[in-house]
Amino acid sequence: MLYFTVMNSSQYPSGTHAYLPFLYVIWSDDLLSASELEVIRLAITSDKELPAAARKLLLGWINPDTPPSAATQKHWRELIRESGASYREETAYPLSELSSAVGKALDPERGTPPDLTVLEQNLGIQPNHYRHVFEQYSAPRSFSEYYDGTLLAQHHLGKAYSVYRSLDSLWEQKDFRWEIQRNKEQHRQRVSRQVKHLANKGYGALAYPEGSGGKNDMPSYAAVFENLVFLDGSLCVKFGVQFGLFGGSIEKLGSEKHRKAYLGKAGTLELPGCFAMTETRHGSNVRGIHTTATYLHESRELVINTPGPDDNKEYIGNALEARMATVFAQLIVGGKRHGVHAVLVPLRDASGEVLPGIRVEDNGYKLGLNGVDNGKIWFREVRVPVDNLLDRYGGINAEGEYSSELKNSNKRFFTMLGTLVGGRICVGKGALAGAKMALGIAVRYALRRRQFNDSKRMQEDLIMDYPSHQLRLIPRLASCYVYQAALDEQMENYQQLTGGDTQKLEAQVAGLKAIITDFANDAIQESREACGGKGYLLENRIADLRSDIDIFTTFEGDNTVLLQLAAKGRLTDFRTAFNSDDFFGVLRLLRTQAARRLGAINPVYVNKTDREHLYKPAFHQHAFEYRTARLTYTLALRIRDYIKKGLPAYQAYLKVQAHFLALGRAYSEEIAYQSYRRVCEGITDEKHQALFDRLGALHALERITADMDWYFEQGYVGKRKSKAIKRRVERLTTELRPHVASLVEGFAIPEELMQQVPIARDH
Amino acid sequence: MLYFTVMNSSQYPSGTHAYLPFLYVIWSDDLLSASELEVIRLAITSDKELPAAARKLLLGWINPDTPPSAATQKHWRELIRESGASYREETAYPLSELSSAVGKALDPERGTPPDLTVLEQNLGIQPNHYRHVFEQYSAPRSFSEYYDGTLLAQHHLGKAYSVYRSLDSLWEQKDFRWEIQRNKEQHRQRVSRQVKHLANKGYGALAYPEGSGGKNDMPSYAAVFENLVFLDGSLCVKFGVQFGLFGGSIEKLGSEKHRKAYLGKAGTLELPGCFAMTETRHGSNVRGIHTTATYLHESRELVINTPGPDDNKEYIGNALEARMATVFAQLIVGGKRHGVHAVLVPLRDASGEVLPGIRVEDNGYKLGLNGVDNGKIWFREVRVPVDNLLDRYGGINAEGEYSSELKNSNKRFFTMLGTLVGGRICVGKGALAGAKMALGIAVRYALRRRQFNDSKRMQEDLIMDYPSHQLRLIPRLASCYVYQAALDEQMENYQQLTGGDTQKLEAQVAGLKAIITDFANDAIQESREACGGKGYLLENRIADLRSDIDIFTTFEGDNTVLLQLAAKGRLTDFRTAFNSDDFFGVLRLLRTQAARRLGAINPVYVNKTDREHLYKPAFHQHAFEYRTARLTYTLALRIRDYIKKGLPAYQAYLKVQAHFLALGRAYSEEIAYQSYRRVCEGITDEKHQALFDRLGALHALERITADMDWYFEQGYVGKRKSKAIKRRVERLTTELRPHVASLVEGFAIPEELMQQVPIARDH
Repeated sequence: MLYFTVMNSSQYPSGTHAYLPFLYVIWSDDLLSASELEVIRLAITSDKELPAAARKLLLGWINPDTPPSAATQKHWRELIRESGASYREETAYPLSELSSAVGKALDPERGTPPDLTVLEQNLGIQPNHYRHVFEQYSAPRSFSEYYDGTLLAQHHLGKAYSVYRSLDSLWEQKDFRWEIQRNKEQHRQRVSRQVKHLANKGYGALAYPEGSGGKNDMPSYAAVFENLVFLDGSLCVKFGVQFGLFGGSIEKLGSEKHRKAYLGKAGTLELPGCFAMTETRHGSNVRGIHTTATYLHESRELVINTPGPDDNKEYIGNALEARMATVFAQLIVGGKRHGVHAVLVPLRDASGEVLPGIRVEDNGYKLGLNGVDNGKIWFREVRVPVDNLLDRYGGINAEGEYSSELKNSNKRFFTMLGTLVGGRICVGKGALAGAKMALGIAVRYALRRRQFNDSKRMQEDLIMDYPSHQLRLIPRLASCYVYQAALDEQMENYQQLTGGDTQKLEAQVAGLKAIITDFANDAIQESREACGGKGYLLENRIADLRSDIDIFTTFEGDNTVLLQLAAKGRLTDFRTAFNSDDFFGVLRLLRTQAARRLGAINPVYVNKTDREHLYKPAFHQHAFEYRTARLTYTLALRIRDYIKKGLPAYQAYLKVQAHFLALGRAYSEEIAYQSYRRVCEGITDEKHQALFDRLGALHALERITADMDWYFEQGYVGKRKSKAIKRRVERLTTELRPHVASLVEGFAIPEELMQQVPIARDH
Repeated sequence: MLYFTVMNSSQYPSGTHAYLPFLYVIWSDDLLSASELEVIRLAITSDKELPAAARKLLLGWINPDTPPSAATQKHWRELIRESGASYREETAYPLSELSSAVGKALDPERGTPPDLTVLEQNLGIQPNHYRHVFEQYSAPRSFSEYYDGTLLAQHHLGKAYSVYRSLDSLWEQKDFRWEIQRNKEQHRQRVSRQVKHLANKGYGALAYPEGSGGKNDMPSYAAVFENLVFLDGSLCVKFGVQFGLFGGSIEKLGSEKHRKAYLGKAGTLELPGCFAMTETRHGSNVRGIHTTATYLHESRELVINTPGPDDNKEYIGNALEARMATVFAQLIVGGKRHGVHAVLVPLRDASGEVLPGIRVEDNGYKLGLNGVDNGKIWFREVRVPVDNLLDRYGGINAEGEYSSELKNSNKRFFTMLGTLVGGRICVGKGALAGAKMALGIAVRYALRRRQFNDSKRMQEDLIMDYPSHQLRLIPRLASCYVYQAALDEQMENYQQLTGGDTQKLEAQVAGLKAIITDFANDAIQESREACGGKGYLLENRIADLRSDIDIFTTFEGDNTVLLQLAAKGRLTDFRTAFNSDDFFGVLRLLRTQAARRLGAINPVYVNKTDREHLYKPAFHQHAFEYRTARLTYTLALRIRDYIKKGLPAYQAYLKVQAHFLALGRAYSEEIAYQSYRRVCEGITDEKHQALFDRLGALHALERITADMDWYFEQGYVGKRKSKAIKRRVERLTTELRPHVASLVEGFAIPEELMQQVPIARDH
């Protein structure tokens, strides 16, 4: 066992020395996988000129059963220092060059040392991992230029990238420069001017049919929408209210006459409108709204009425400017209720005066989005022609009879809502853009800001080089890439939609909106804290993003409600049987579906911890699928048990509500990752594939970590695997550290706007 | 096995029927512990007039080995319905009364049914648990009056309760009514008026010595401080800057001459001051600040200077009004640096004009706290008499020589900072008060707001009755009780402090400040979301609390830095050896200390899931202690391994930074729970003890759940126990649901201020 005792330099056989820097860096880290050792073993065995004695010694050192002692490692380090070779981080392969220099100095006998760059490329060890080991602190490189931000953005955003760049000229205009806004009236005026400008450029109508001034291009519309967050959340929301909610309701719920009369004008902002659905007492439970639209056959009119003082429309964006509202009301024809329908109701005349019977109140100041004029609206017996009924899913004929192709009023209601799901995708996208902006600012700041040091060093560390800071920001950068893919795919599905059952799309969008808006707020908050007091100043933008995006978790559907919608979607087959007695049939079905995934987990798998396995998309996908399937199955079992005991369905539902929410989240994470993998599989060059795979692995492992206790409970992971996954998360953040600047460039945030942020601008 | 088949009512022996409602409620729930079954067994066996046949049947039904079938349970429910007995929630013991009525209707033979109220009292089952089971939905009680809010407040706040109430007259004044503030100048003027009023009342000086106009009562000062958050975070911070930071620095770092000259005036606000420590380039790393104070012997002056443009003081509260600043600077005497010292530097003359050599700039708008005038300050060769040096820990004698009792400049610096730790406790308390206010508003709203229903019921459910809503709010109410106890105890320790080593106190306070300000922001955010769009309106206060408390995670020490400080405190013994070779000695020490707690966990314990065990403080304490001890031990091992391999200490530290943070959190949670238990043990009446125990159990189990994956990795919990703990968290929230209104009253938030919040006021 001579190999494992300490020797002085002269005792190591020729050929050994050049390997010492690598060996030292690798063994000083905790994380050595079989594949990493294999990379080194290959390098050693393929080093043809390596003397046999050196080869034997080196191979012994990389045998995990007989690791070199701490004393041996310490000795290596002393040898490296004695060699006088200097570590220069500015070179392309600093560790290989150091090795070469050490070899030359300590082992002149060998001549030219082997080229070890292949090791540096394949091991994924980064300078920030070992920089301090060699006490070489001056001018470390703050980022790598290995990846080009523009190429990343193209992979990340696909077709939308060109939409992003087409907006660049916008940000150069005075009215599209960011500025602090504290007075809501001034802020609203500014936002209105901005929206008008966007309408003039044709951006508002992008999603509309060509006959209505549009290009039938919802994905591009959504790209514009998310871009506006980079400037101001209020602008984004106001834009969405006018063109998405108001215009969208006309397009999707109306018929040709409505589109002809109003849609073009909505798109040009000639007709400012609002979307009046929510009421003070009915937010999440829209089906229960109280506003009525009663049909009068003699005049062929609808009478719109707010019955009680708290039955007013609430929080309606654009309420203080709109000339028309899409009002959701209980339709009553011939004394019979037909459920919620939408009616176009004029609110103001051409001069902006509120019309008789209508009362509007400002909702006042909010945490954020104060550039949006949210208000309350009451209707007192307001009459409109029956033609104003948006009648795609239900109308009133010349005889004054109600008719609809959808006989079931519930089904009709949900079909109507279903057509508006595009807006929910946009909300997710807007929130995600906010997260990207905040993370982008935090990363740029972290690449400039230095704090602390140890006395020996020339300058303090960049805060980006603290592991805690990396863990804060880098997994969230990765998640932005994943979630963008998920939303873009849903948007594509929505665009391709031609009638039919939208239930699956709705359930998936509901879940994604919930997890992504939650994620966005968390990411923005982390970014704020990562910038310390600087992040708290309005001039640095993160504070406003925090305040604006906050409500994205609530509007267009409260996240708690949406997660349950997602879970119910996952239980579709099951749902119809919810109140029936055939639970056993349902369970048999679920069991069959689930059998493949729910079979007992192989004990080897439970503690499989090698890097290959943990980085493999198949592992991540299996973990996500397993969680969804298992939660579905156990949820069904629990409900069955309650029902069997005679518990009313509603009570059974309350008892499993937390389980429902967990399933909604799990299902949404699963489909998000699947979308992302499809993007990865579309990337053809290895260089970018490697990066995107790593981002996906980091995201997936971090998500699995968040539910690790559950995976333990199911026996899906064991102690070793759990620890290995967490170490891999830390390791992946380190591996991605050099590329953070490029990853942020990949978000394609307008540089013009970034330069307006004091802590993020170039100095 | 006759007992376990379905029978019709006439087949059950007399005496059985009155028990059916209880049995049905209990078995329809998943959660039956041995002790609960024992409660029922006792009731049955002590029912002396119960016929033998009925007793046998009933005892069979509560045998967990032979549970009644689902069909049997369903049959019970049908019998209850058939009985025609009605469930009336407004009575004191609705379930017992229902049982009695069922007994009378179905079992007239028996005569008076047994009194089962003892069951209802001991099982901890709440109406909201089973209300729907009996399809009785009208007028459910929204809360219980079993606990009196005032008594809870007295237990919760101790002596401070009277301070809270002494402020009541304040909130009735016009200048102390809440109002929306959007303009920073107006907001600052208002806050300045408020602070002046508080100074006139003597609140500012409360903590100062009696000779300086105070009462030497820091705990009461802190109670005032936290109360101010109920009105306005800006007021609280501005108050703290003047009396705590500025006045406190004079009191703690100065000598008698400084106290005489300035402290009284600071307390009356005759001398507005600020605390100028942070610099733009040095926030967390204060020891590295660049401002200099150079001693000139000829004039016996100190020259205060800002060397570079970014070396200015930054984010200094009160900077735009202060007439004097406590400036932290590198003291240079005779060309030699003596580290950071504090110097009193006049900033403005009596008329408010900035003095020569001084430049002040407004920091501008922030996310919150815009009523506080934060600014930047530059000094250009500003001369002050040497007497202005706050010289408690280091002074300059008549010969111009520097002298200090503390020879080590690091030690001196940390001793100086240590005396200011009271402010850090206050920051934790202020944040916690913000959390209470937000939770209080959310709870009051949830006890009024109804949403959704199922078609059968009379009215929609209160949102407080949704399990997801309970899980959102109730564990956080419990945590407020726990953390208040922790901060109050530290404040008491601080008040009792008479010199000596403050290191332990500092480490504990650092950790508590970090976990509690993090908790507070999380709680406020949950409260915002729990109120939906209403929570987003400024008029409902939560939004401002969110914005104001946000920065509490950063100021008076960034939480990431503070958690590491806490962890280092836990490693005290270890720390001195950090750079030495005697790691083995340290490890031996740690191992001995830890042996008691780190012994292999008994397999029975790992899956002990009964209610008694899970509710027992000893279990919680053991879990917290185990985590801290284990994290300490493994951290020490990891560092030792790195050092043995020759890694520089700083690099080793970077590699274990995440571990450090985890230890800091664990240690802080452990001491918080210990403080809380001491409060519980001081409560003598059983009624309140039971409640406080339950709050502690909920908090502890929720915290353990948050780290469940780690407990799994250590083999500390098994699958069954993990699931049981989570179910207990859900169950405890249900048990505490009836008392939420009282729990909020226990926070003693001024009712005057609550009534100013539209969604929280009585209607």
